[in-house]
Amino acid sequence: MPRVVVHVMPKPEILDPQGKAVAAALPRLGFEGIASVRQGKRFELEVEGEATEEVLATLREAASTLLSNPVIEDVVALEVEDA
Amino acid sequence: MPRVVVHVMPKPEILDPQGKAVAAALPRLGFEGIASVRQGKRFELEVEGEATEEVLATLREAASTLLSNPVIEDVVALEVEDA
Repeated sequence: MPRVVVHVMPKPEILDPQGKAVAAALPRLGFEGIASVRQGKRFELEVEGEATEEVLATLREAASTLLSNPVIEDVVALEVEDA
Repeated sequence: MPRVVVHVMPKPEILDPQGKAVAAALPRLGFEGIASVRQGKRFELEVEGEATEEVLATLREAASTLLSNPVIEDVVALEVEDA
């Protein structure tokens, strides 16, 4: 069953409090040298049947409407992995 | 500044209520043919200086202790992107 991986990140101009919290915690825990952290989401979707161009077009639409909030997030990548 | 991308997913044996909610919503919104969805996290870390092996070893440790909860999550990938 092919797997489609969708990567969603907050838009660059959007504040990312989760990422900021991680960036602040890193040096406190002894991890130095990280200038900034941004946190997004990764979805793994198992597709029934084949990942045709038509299926991928549908998934691209789902990614930019359901899996991400287009006001504050970008779908930065959509990859097909055969499983 | 090199960017390190860390991918974190719930372990296969762990229930993933967020993923299940997305999987249930997809057909309701007209997106058919998705067998299952799992939702994880994607972190983008901007590294100061060069992404040497030493820096990456530190980041791998940070990824498996701070960026993920090793009881319920796996770090599935750690990639270096030059920016």
